[in-house]
Amino acid sequence: MVEKGALIKISYDGYVDGKLFDTTNEELAKKEGIYNPNIVYGPVPIFAGEGMVVKGLDEILLEMDVGEEKEVVLPPEKAFGKRDPAKIKLVPMREFIKRGIKPIVGLRVNIDGEIGRIVKAEGGRVLVDFNHELAGKEVKYRIKIEEKVEGDENIIREIFNMFAPKIKPNVTIEGEKAIIELPEEAFLINLQQIKLAVANEVFKRLKNIKEIKFIETVKRKD
Amino acid sequence: MVEKGALIKISYDGYVDGKLFDTTNEELAKKEGIYNPNIVYGPVPIFAGEGMVVKGLDEILLEMDVGEEKEVVLPPEKAFGKRDPAKIKLVPMREFIKRGIKPIVGLRVNIDGEIGRIVKAEGGRVLVDFNHELAGKEVKYRIKIEEKVEGDENIIREIFNMFAPKIKPNVTIEGEKAIIELPEEAFLINLQQIKLAVANEVFKRLKNIKEIKFIETVKRKD
Repeated sequence: MVEKGALIKISYDGYVDGKLFDTTNEELAKKEGIYNPNIVYGPVPIFAGEGMVVKGLDEILLEMDVGEEKEVVLPPEKAFGKRDPAKIKLVPMREFIKRGIKPIVGLRVNIDGEIGRIVKAEGGRVLVDFNHELAGKEVKYRIKIEEKVEGDENIIREIFNMFAPKIKPNVTIEGEKAIIELPEEAFLINLQQIKLAVANEVFKRLKNIKEIKFIETVKRKD
Repeated sequence: MVEKGALIKISYDGYVDGKLFDTTNEELAKKEGIYNPNIVYGPVPIFAGEGMVVKGLDEILLEMDVGEEKEVVLPPEKAFGKRDPAKIKLVPMREFIKRGIKPIVGLRVNIDGEIGRIVKAEGGRVLVDFNHELAGKEVKYRIKIEEKVEGDENIIREIFNMFAPKIKPNVTIEGEKAIIELPEEAFLINLQQIKLAVANEVFKRLKNIKEIKFIETVKRKD
C-alpha cells in the first residue's frame, strides 16, 4: 500500500453523468472531444494523501498498491463539493458593459478573478453561478497508480514536472548537491519563481540535499 | 587611443545650465541632490563608438586614451537633439480623466508610453511637450575612460553588467564554454530574457565562445 506523502504517478479518467470531463489519456481526450493542446497528457506526479487530487481519490490512493487500478464513484462532498446557493449571485449589467460582454445564458465569465457561468439574463438582471461546474455532482473515476517514484534524481525530476510539466530537466546528484540542467526552451518562460518553488519542495522532501544548482545552457547558433 | 567596439568603463558628470543632471559618482549625486537609489553608481561599461552614449561623447571617446579625462561642451545635435515643435501636442482632457490625473503645469505624464511634461493646462486644453527634457540644450560633460576591459572573463562579466547592473556574476571560461554563476538574489528578477540577451552579445563579441552555461544555486536554509 502507498504511504501518505509518497511520490506516485497516477493516471485517471473522470466521468460525470456518463460523460468524460478529465483524463490523463491523450487518445481518450481526443476521442471524447475534450482534448486541450495546452495540457501535458500522461501519468501525473502527486504526493499521495496531501490534497493534490479530490478528497475521495486521495483517500482511495492510500488503500491501493502500485500497479493497481480501481473504479470509484464519489459523492459531491468527496469530489467537487456541494452546490452552494449563496454562490449564485446577481451581477450588475454595468460589469458586463465594462468588459464589452453581451450576457448570454451559458456563457462562462470571469468577474474579479472568480469564474462563473451565466444562468439567467433578462431585463438588465444577470444571474451568475460561481459554483464549481461539477459542484453537486456525483463523479466516477477510473484511477491507477502507475508507479511509485523512487531514487532522489527521479524524485527531483518529478517535483520539477509538478511545477513545469512541459520542461524536461536532466537531474544528477553529487553528494549533497542536486544539479538540474534545463533545456534551451526554458528560456522562453519566467522560471525564476518555479525554480525557487522546486528547490523548496526538494529541500522539504529530501533531507539529504543541501544545495541545488540550476544550469541553463545557450549554444552559439551560427 | 580606444578603437571602435572596444569595451571600456567610463565615468562622467553631465551638466546643463551649470546644474548636474547625470553622474556616475554617488557622492556627487548625493551632494547635488540628484541621488537615485535605484541607480548603480560607479564606472559604466560601454562599447566605444556604438551609440551607447550621446553622439558627442561617443566621438570624443574614440580620440581618448585609457586613463585620460576630458571636459567637453556639446551642442544639442551632439547631445539630446534639437527641440522639435511638432512634439508639443494637444492631449484631450479625457486622457487625463481616464488616468485619474489632474493636469498641472510641470507635471510629467506618460501617454501611451511616451513621456512628456505638461506645459499649459487651461479651459480643458492640455498642452504636453514630448521633447526630451534636455532637447535644445547645450550640455557640458566631464568624462574619463577608467579602464579598457580585457580578458574574456572580464568582458563577459561587464556584458552581464550592462543588462543587469545590480547582479554580480562569477564568470569562468573552460575552453569554448563560458560559465556564468549567478548569486541567489538573481531569483528575485525575471532573468530569462536578460540571460538570452547576454548570451547573444557574448557570442557577437567573443568568437571563440561556443556555449554559455548559466548556473543558479539555491542553498538549504534550515
